[in-house]
Amino acid sequence: MTSETSEDRAEIAVIGLGNAGLPLAAVIADSGIKVVGVDVNRQRCLLINQGKNPIPEEKGLDGLIEKHGGRKLVATADYRDAAACRTFIVIVPVFVDENYSPDFTIMQKALRSLGGILKKRDLVVLETTFPPGTTEGPVRDLLCHASGLSRDDFLLAYSPERIMTGYSISRLKEFPKVIGGTDEQSGIEAFSVYRRFISNLHQVSSARAAEMIKVMEGCYRDVNIGLANELFRICGELGIDFFEAREQACHQYCHIHLPSTGVGGHCIPVYPWFLIKEMERREKFESCRLLRTAREVNDGMIDYWMGRILEQCLKINKPLASVKICILGITFRAGVKEFYHSRNLALAKRLAEKGLDVYAFDELLSSEEVQRWGLRCIDPRQADLIFDCFNLRWLRAEDWPERDRAAGPSAEPASADCKGCL
Amino acid sequence: MTSETSEDRAEIAVIGLGNAGLPLAAVIADSGIKVVGVDVNRQRCLLINQGKNPIPEEKGLDGLIEKHGGRKLVATADYRDAAACRTFIVIVPVFVDENYSPDFTIMQKALRSLGGILKKRDLVVLETTFPPGTTEGPVRDLLCHASGLSRDDFLLAYSPERIMTGYSISRLKEFPKVIGGTDEQSGIEAFSVYRRFISNLHQVSSARAAEMIKVMEGCYRDVNIGLANELFRICGELGIDFFEAREQACHQYCHIHLPSTGVGGHCIPVYPWFLIKEMERREKFESCRLLRTAREVNDGMIDYWMGRILEQCLKINKPLASVKICILGITFRAGVKEFYHSRNLALAKRLAEKGLDVYAFDELLSSEEVQRWGLRCIDPRQADLIFDCFNLRWLRAEDWPERDRAAGPSAEPASADCKGCL
Repeated sequence: MTSETSEDRAEIAVIGLGNAGLPLAAVIADSGIKVVGVDVNRQRCLLINQGKNPIPEEKGLDGLIEKHGGRKLVATADYRDAAACRTFIVIVPVFVDENYSPDFTIMQKALRSLGGILKKRDLVVLETTFPPGTTEGPVRDLLCHASGLSRDDFLLAYSPERIMTGYSISRLKEFPKVIGGTDEQSGIEAFSVYRRFISNLHQVSSARAAEMIKVMEGCYRDVNIGLANELFRICGELGIDFFEAREQACHQYCHIHLPSTGVGGHCIPVYPWFLIKEMERREKFESCRLLRTAREVNDGMIDYWMGRILEQCLKINKPLASVKICILGITFRAGVKEFYHSRNLALAKRLAEKGLDVYAFDELLSSEEVQRWGLRCIDPRQADLIFDCFNLRWLRAEDWPERDRAAGPSAEPASADCKGCL
Repeated sequence: MTSETSEDRAEIAVIGLGNAGLPLAAVIADSGIKVVGVDVNRQRCLLINQGKNPIPEEKGLDGLIEKHGGRKLVATADYRDAAACRTFIVIVPVFVDENYSPDFTIMQKALRSLGGILKKRDLVVLETTFPPGTTEGPVRDLLCHASGLSRDDFLLAYSPERIMTGYSISRLKEFPKVIGGTDEQSGIEAFSVYRRFISNLHQVSSARAAEMIKVMEGCYRDVNIGLANELFRICGELGIDFFEAREQACHQYCHIHLPSTGVGGHCIPVYPWFLIKEMERREKFESCRLLRTAREVNDGMIDYWMGRILEQCLKINKPLASVKICILGITFRAGVKEFYHSRNLALAKRLAEKGLDVYAFDELLSSEEVQRWGLRCIDPRQADLIFDCFNLRWLRAEDWPERDRAAGPSAEPASADCKGCL
């Protein structure tokens, strides 16, 4: 393989230049390896090739794209431009459908296109978070079918992205990363390619194990956020300040998470379903009870907060239907303009559904953007009651702007609740 | 209070010289304060006064008892010997009954005796783990009743023990300790007394908050062990090595615990019930679902392991009823001769109940001691199948003695699963 490498020829293709793929492609380029980035978004490709970073919130990415965009890192919408590469890293999103089953539509499209250029002895590494068994199963089948190659003709491995939006570059440079092959040779080969640009790299016994590792992390977070939510409710019932108790309960052996309106985003609320669905399909209902309960507890938090909001309304001397309620923050977490499974948005909609006079305000969104989500926008100063979803705080119009976030429970960044979002 | 202190008069009494009380009394004495230790066990008192440590497994305690026993630390079975003290620290066990409700029998007896010597302006600090609200509620009522004092006549606070058997001295010297009063004055006074012998001391707003902090820690561990057990089962189902996956999944934001036969001992399996029972009494069934599920998942592990043992029996070419099964380890955890809620013991009994030819072996126990628990003892070399409960390993007679524990999943000390056992 090394003999084919020249100054001018890209060795590695990164398929998908989204929030996870672009930082990875930039880090590979920065290690001195020429990369072709493939993305369906032509506008994004153009920007990158001009040295302009399409994800400005990603720390350190500006410099890398400026330096390597159009040079060591060439973006293209055409798979044929990557045909000479020998390693293909696929990092396109997999979402879930309304039944929480993975929706492989985008992935399938990418794999079919990749199949069109795949050659014998090429290495394919998947990075998208998958239900365990996906790489060695449907991914391999699809690649075989699309390329006409047999399963032993190409090498196939899995290495889950572990980035955190905003910190992806430092994550790639410092955080442990795991990689596993669908067979021994694939594992060895993938490890030797990745170690050229990932310093903290760990080989595991199989692609399946590497897939499980990523899903387990999501389950850990979901269950622990569920526990925090449950303990928060119990503290409220017992007249105890949860945040005071949490601060003193946490130590090197005890990591109680932060409560919330539930868990949103493409990652944490989704990954437990990968295991729950598979266990339930196998009729192993006893083997996923805690994961399912945690999901239900977290999703049940919007009902809890609806109850708490109504309690606050009791204190306002107005007919309930005319109490102007402002939901402050409707994205799934603070600082990120993403709505997937946003519990804050769901809470606002649930209140509207009940006939309450509910409005939304989100500093990331224009009035029109709020309306696009079926909600009315309000200046918080016009509201009778403001519920700050990110900090779980009640504000009155007169408290606005009362924005010292560091003083609230969010002193720990809410972003710690989400790692690795595509 | 200081004016009453002299070289010869004890200032502080520690009521209960068990696994938690004795190390605390020794640490107080070592800080230069004269202590009276009160314990119903006269033999234990005699030993202590002779400078002999009744808990030799407690690191660093030998030296302290040798130095202070009978001098700075005087043990007695008679509360009257502590009558001149102005601070009373109560650290006697509270167990749970068969319905998981706290059984205050021993505590009540201690508080009644304490009431007989309690004086105006004395300070009482409880250290036993309680359901939140116990100190300001039943404990205060009982002390008032037994002493004839009114509730404002004495100071009352709570500071949960956070020791770990074997490491209590270092825990007391280094680990953060919290303290909270039933009223402001009690909190201030208790903090100022405790800071004389506890360096890492944190004041919290109330006794109730301090009680919750300790219970929350137990809940965190129970839920996380439940999660580890569930992920272990799922990995087994998916053909993934849980221990390999866990090793790579754990990092600074992810703390997946160790799987087990369930959770035993007086602490972790008990504390969640303090909250579950209280929430269910209040008909807040929705507020304790995760805690209850985790309890059920952990308690359900003996059924799971029974199934796994039967699978192993399939491989043995003998009628099932004559397969000699050895359960290796029946205490609730390795290295501690305690049986309360031992899931290992429960597993052995469950197998016997089903008519299997089950035996037990525990290196801490004699054959007679095993028999006292209703089980037959066996030399593991005579067994067809050995299940090592502490390391979740299968052994055959020919593997015995195969005792390199560091090689198994128990490389992390199983003791990390239990903190603060009375």
